[in-house]
Order: sequence, then C-alpha cells, then structure tokens
Amino acid sequence: MARVSPPSFPTAEEINPDSTMFRHISDEIMLHGQCYDELRVLCKTIGNRISGSPKAAQAVVWGEKEMKAAGADKVWLQAADVPHWVRGKEELKLKYGKNGAYKKVPMLSLGSSEGTGGKILQAEVLMVANFDEFKTLSKEQVKGKIVFFNYRFRQDLINTFEAYGDAVKYRGAGPYVAAEKGAVGIIIRSMSTGEDDFPHTGSTHYYDSVKSIPSVAVGNYTADSLEKNCKKGIVIAQLQSNCTMMKDKVRSYNVIGEITGSVHPDEIILVGGHLDSWDVGEGANDDGAGVVQSMEVIRTFKALGIKPKRTIRAVLFINEENGLRGGFAYADSAKKNNEHHILAVETDAGGFAPRGFGMEMSPAQKQEILVYKNLFLPYGVYDFSQDEGGADISPLRKMDIPEMGLLPDPQRYFDIHHTNNDVFENVNHRELKLGSVVLTQLLYLVSEYGLK
Amino acid sequence: MARVSPPSFPTAEEINPDSTMFRHISDEIMLHGQCYDELRVLCKTIGNRISGSPKAAQAVVWGEKEMKAAGADKVWLQAADVPHWVRGKEELKLKYGKNGAYKKVPMLSLGSSEGTGGKILQAEVLMVANFDEFKTLSKEQVKGKIVFFNYRFRQDLINTFEAYGDAVKYRGAGPYVAAEKGAVGIIIRSMSTGEDDFPHTGSTHYYDSVKSIPSVAVGNYTADSLEKNCKKGIVIAQLQSNCTMMKDKVRSYNVIGEITGSVHPDEIILVGGHLDSWDVGEGANDDGAGVVQSMEVIRTFKALGIKPKRTIRAVLFINEENGLRGGFAYADSAKKNNEHHILAVETDAGGFAPRGFGMEMSPAQKQEILVYKNLFLPYGVYDFSQDEGGADISPLRKMDIPEMGLLPDPQRYFDIHHTNNDVFENVNHRELKLGSVVLTQLLYLVSEYGLK
Repeated sequence: MARVSPPSFPTAEEINPDSTMFRHISDEIMLHGQCYDELRVLCKTIGNRISGSPKAAQAVVWGEKEMKAAGADKVWLQAADVPHWVRGKEELKLKYGKNGAYKKVPMLSLGSSEGTGGKILQAEVLMVANFDEFKTLSKEQVKGKIVFFNYRFRQDLINTFEAYGDAVKYRGAGPYVAAEKGAVGIIIRSMSTGEDDFPHTGSTHYYDSVKSIPSVAVGNYTADSLEKNCKKGIVIAQLQSNCTMMKDKVRSYNVIGEITGSVHPDEIILVGGHLDSWDVGEGANDDGAGVVQSMEVIRTFKALGIKPKRTIRAVLFINEENGLRGGFAYADSAKKNNEHHILAVETDAGGFAPRGFGMEMSPAQKQEILVYKNLFLPYGVYDFSQDEGGADISPLRKMDIPEMGLLPDPQRYFDIHHTNNDVFENVNHRELKLGSVVLTQLLYLVSEYGLK
Repeated sequence: MARVSPPSFPTAEEINPDSTMFRHISDEIMLHGQCYDELRVLCKTIGNRISGSPKAAQAVVWGEKEMKAAGADKVWLQAADVPHWVRGKEELKLKYGKNGAYKKVPMLSLGSSEGTGGKILQAEVLMVANFDEFKTLSKEQVKGKIVFFNYRFRQDLINTFEAYGDAVKYRGAGPYVAAEKGAVGIIIRSMSTGEDDFPHTGSTHYYDSVKSIPSVAVGNYTADSLEKNCKKGIVIAQLQSNCTMMKDKVRSYNVIGEITGSVHPDEIILVGGHLDSWDVGEGANDDGAGVVQSMEVIRTFKALGIKPKRTIRAVLFINEENGLRGGFAYADSAKKNNEHHILAVETDAGGFAPRGFGMEMSPAQKQEILVYKNLFLPYGVYDFSQDEGGADISPLRKMDIPEMGLLPDPQRYFDIHHTNNDVFENVNHRELKLGSVVLTQLLYLVSEYGLK
C-alpha cells in the first residue's frame, strides 16, 4: 500500500486507504473488542497487584495467557527484580482542640513509606500551605511535630496532569523536607481533584541523609476539616501503621508479546502499559486500562489479518509504580540485544476517551507523525501539542528512541488515581475501546510507513 | 475592548484580551462554580420531573429562585401548557418456550405510550430485526402479536448521536408501523450503548389513523435473551401497565433570567437547557446539566463584573421531552414581541467534557464563529464541524435565528439517557464545570463582538 497523504478534513467515508483501514480497525474494536471484558477479569478476579505481591505474580500469569490468546506470534517473560512494600494495618486519628476526642479519618500511607512499627505515634499537627511557608519555620518550630502539607491540587488547570506535576512534590519530597527539620511524620492533602474524602496513595522517597518518617495522605474533606481546625487551635494526631519495605527484592516479570514484521522484522514498534498497581482499589484506570489496550492492539492486527511490515510488540511492564524495574530491565535488554525500536508508545493515563498523543522525539519525527493528524479527528484525537511519553518507556530515551503517550481526557483521572475508587466500574466500555482504536491506528501507520 | 484575532496556537499565557478573559472565566468556574452543587440539589431534593407533574412544578419554583441567586437583572416565568403523561405501575413477563415459566424482566413503557389499562395483555412475541424485515410480513403474520423490534444501536459509530439518529425511529414510529398490520403491542430494544439491562424510555408517537398500542422498551441484556429465545421457539409476553396521557394540559412555565446588555440591550444572546426530564432516574445529564450550566453563565458574568454589551439570557425550557411546548411558547413570545435574538445556544447533550459546538446558521455566520476556534483549544473544544442546535431552540429557526449546541463527549450519554441510571453520580464535577466554562466564553465573545 502506498503512502497516502491524508485529506485535510478526512471523514470515514472518504476513499483513502488509510482512513479506510482506520475505519476497519475502529469497527473491529468497537464491535468485537475484548479489552473491556479482559479488564473486568483483571480487576474482579485478581484486583490490585502491587509489585512483589502474590497478586502481581497472578497478574503475570494472566497476562501471559491473555497475550497468547490475543494471537501474538511470540510471547515471553522478561525478568525484573522488584521491591516489595507491604502496607499492613493502619489508622490515623485526629483530635481537634484540647478537649476534643480522637476520631478516625480515612487515610493511606504513601507508597514506600515507613510505618510506626505498630506503635502509636502521637504528635501535634503543624499545618503549612506549601514548601515556601515551611522554609520560614525554624527547626524548633518543627521538631517533634507531624507536618501537614496542605497544598491544594490546582482545580483551575484544565490539564489535570499539569496540576499533578505541580502538586506531586509534596508527596515525593515532603517526608525528606520535613524530616530535615526534625518532624516525626507528615500528612499530605492528597493529589486529588475529588470532591470527596478518598485518600490517594503514591510513591514517596527517602534519602540516607535524613530520617525516614511515616508519611500519609488524607482525602480532600479530611484535609478541609484539618485545615479549619488547625486554624482554630491545637490538633493532635495519632498514627499507627505497619507498612514496611521488605528487605529482599522479588523476582517478577514483564510480559511481552509480538507480531513479527513481514518486511522489516528488525524494526520494532512498542505499545505498552503497566501490569502492577498500587495496593488499593483494582488498578483499573492505573493501569489495567493500558494493559488491556496494549493486548487489544495485537488482537486487532490478527483479527483483521493485517500483516504489519514492522514488528508490533506489546509490553506489560512490571513495577511502574514504585521502582520502574520493569522499564529498566526492558531497556537494558533492548540495549544488550541491539534491538532497533523505531517508536515506543505508552498508555498509562486512564481508560478515558482519547484526545491526543504526546510526542517526545525530534522535530523532524514530529512532522512525520503530524502528517497523520487529520486522520485521527473522526476518533476524537486532535491534540498533538504535548511532550509526553510514559514512565515505563522513559529508560529507552537514552537510546534516542522516539516516544509517544496516549492522552485520554484528563478530567476524571485524579478523582480516582491511586485510590480505593480506581475500580472497573469507573472505566467506560466505549471510552476504553476508543483508546485501543487510536493506539492500533497509530501503530498501523508506523508499521506501514516507518518513522525515521 | 477591540476585537482581536486569536493567535494560531493560543495558550493561556499569551497576552490577548480574549484569551485572558477566557482564562478568567475558566478560573472563576473551575474554582468557584456553583453548577455542580446546584445539580446535586435539583437531583437529590427534587429528582426526576416529567412535564405536568408536581416535581416539575417544584423545579420551576427552584429554577426561579436559583436564577435570581445567580444574579440575573430580571427573572420571569413564561407560561406554557404542557401534556401530562403518567406511568403508573407496570410489569412485563416473558415466557420462553412452551413449557417455560413467566419471568419478570426490567422494562419501561415508552413515553406517551398507551397502557393496558391495568389488564394483562398476553400475546406471542414476533421478532424482527428492522423495518425492512417487518415490511416483508403479512397482516396475518403480525395480527395479534407483540412485535419485538430488535434493532441494535450501532456501537461502531463513534458519534453516538449519529447512532441515536439511526435507531430512534423504532421508538418513534414502531407502534404506528406495527399497529397498521394488527399488532397488539411492541417491545423495542432500547436506544442504548449500555452493556447492561437498563431499559431506556423516551417519546413515542401515535396517529389517529391506527390504533394506539402499548409500547415498551427493554435493556440490552433482556433484548439479547429475547433474541436468543425467539430464534429457538415460541415466546409469550404478558404486559400489564397503567400508563396514560391525562386529558387536560397542565399550566407550566419556562424560567427566564437575563443580564441586560450595556450597549445593545435589544440584541439577545440566549443560552438554555430544559427543566423537565423523563420520570425515571434524576434527569441529571438530561438535562439537569444544561439547566445548571445555563445559570452558571449568568452567575459568572456577575461574579467577574463583566457588563455584557448585549443581553445575555438564560432560559430553562419546560417540556422538551414530550411536547416542546416551552420551546414553542418561547418562540411565539419572541415573535410577538419582536425580540431580536442574535444567537441561541442550547446545552442538552449531557454534562460531559466539552468537545465542540454545533452550528446551524449561514456560512458567513459560521465563519464569524470560526475566527474564535483556536481560543477554545486549551479548553478541549476543537470540533465545529457539526450542524447542531437543540430541540428547545429549534422553533426559533423559523425566525432565522442562528443556533449553536454544546457538544460534550458523546461516549457515555446513551448508556444512561432516559434511564434510572441518569443520576447525579454519573455527572463529573470538572466535566460539568468545563461545559459551563466554554458556554460562558462563547457568550462572552458574541456579547462583545456581535454576530451578523
């Protein structure tokens, strides 16, 4: 099939081999797609699956089986040794005012956080709005306190990922910043757009130079109430938690499947998401969606009898959430084996209706992709303005491999991200499938025409 | 403020009076918007509100109060006499095979349908795939049967409104077509994208020339099972219903509020949705969303201290679902009073993230609107390709008034449209607010620069 310039305002009806194939791909997935049913199985029979856990091991087995069922020519596992963090039982109680009573509030320890070893850590809560305000405090003021970083997720930013980028430093660096001045723990306002009280977990980090202090997140309603009461008078927190990082790494695996290219088998186009999740909810949007969409790409090529000129490879990465060991293992192997990836595409931003693709590549390569832009319009994809790939594929950047990231509508993601509310019911069947459609369409074009 | 051509790729940061005002509008609504809280009240304290019902009367009172609270300079009610259809108790039982047992299935009578007068209507079910197949049947074959129009909502169409346009004739004309050949009732497969068993109601029509026969909808799962069993053998249905159209019309009202234009008070720009709903669920997406978004436009102009040059008028129409009497009353009054509307905008397609505006106007007017297109991109609005206004404002078309319609993402709408599942919880706060944002932005531009 010859390369065809897409019409300026293509419609499904216009006769153009690419837009016709786009339509075939869409019809196949919207009418016969398996991704939604697969996601139901992943969420409801396995559920959440933090790296190193028995559930994560089950997910690897399931992924390998499903990848074969999708019709990949070759399926294999790629070893990665992953950290294993265990939450255990945990509880946060707050007492507002001298004469108040301790009251349990919804909370989640941050991922990789130290716990209190099962003991009650009791301390006064010191609220600060942000790091700038914290900088003005002396060590005396902070010592022995539990610091409450009350930084609000910016609801005014239309792109919620921009707001996440703005706020997430309180989750990542909060424990370190607070411990440096002698704090004994931190509470953060969750990275959350939710008008609710779901706490959001997610990775935090420690450094050898300072003490690792217990770190927890509360939902927006609890944070609002904490804010109000910290302004009024003394607030005492009692935190009791058992979370701990296990000493030994656990052997786990990326699940990989591919359709070997018919003309240029050595040119690999990767599409992937991550198999692990946090240990709450069902990891439905983060990133069960990406996992089942990646396998749907393989299934669709097979179902339509498309023999891609270049190799289509789907990768279900392990350990995106707290270590990226799957991503590193993949990149190491690609380098060692001198594999030639011409494009890596990640889907790890929720199973919502697609709106665009981020591109992390040279300006010339961007121009090659932008030639196709109008073909995607009938499928709701119009935004190619962002520089976004994905975490799992980021280790490939060192090898100068062009990256893209599926950009679904971002409005709902941070209501549920890393919470007990990230469940199958919060993924819509048509939105999820439409993401698979545009991923398959993109991979089809690059498999036909390459990317220089 | 002078008219400024928007930049080709505007960002919120670019200095341009219009994009700056766009940002102010967005910030006001995303941070301080009231529409979501108002929708909660409408859905949870009033609930569904079919025309002519006491709930609809409550909604008028509520709407008038909220319109005043939004800060409209003038608020008034506009009378419309509306039909009053009452569902009453209803039940459908199906018996599969000669020796089967009757089993109750989820169902809803179609709106305006005749009932069975409380008696059991028992008849054999005759399945047809579509009208074409029905045409091939003789009167003998149809007589005395309950016809099951098993037409599938097309999941392959990415624009679900296109699929609705394709399928809705079975709901509207099914009873008439079937009765002409002597059928005693019809069952339709719901106009539904849902992978579930929610039946969808909605308007049907009768004509004097044929008998008005009871007409009901079943959800997709029941339809699938009915299909399977009709292929296998005989299926008998027992329908018992009490729905009836009341003889007398009920006096009801459109709720209207406006901010009088500071320079051209006689040039009116209308934004509206409809206050009535079907008598199931909570009328959250259809069209509580449009109602609260329209009032949010008024509130935002006031909150930002914008004195629009032209008159901004919000209209909460009554009786969109089964009569359009509010829309007709409004158009009649506008004509009688020689009002000069320069644009009418409807929001009645769900409270989802906005993706575009439909335009029903002259090519020259379209060009005037398209000048602004890029200003909307940062807010996710990119599609101006459709000819869409809205039902309530459609009577104004005869007066040559340009129409626009907000086009939210359409993927989820027909999962819940006209069902018990159209509830507040199925509206996302940020998506709803973002719809208010782009409506206010559009009305702002037209109030500043007019539309010829």
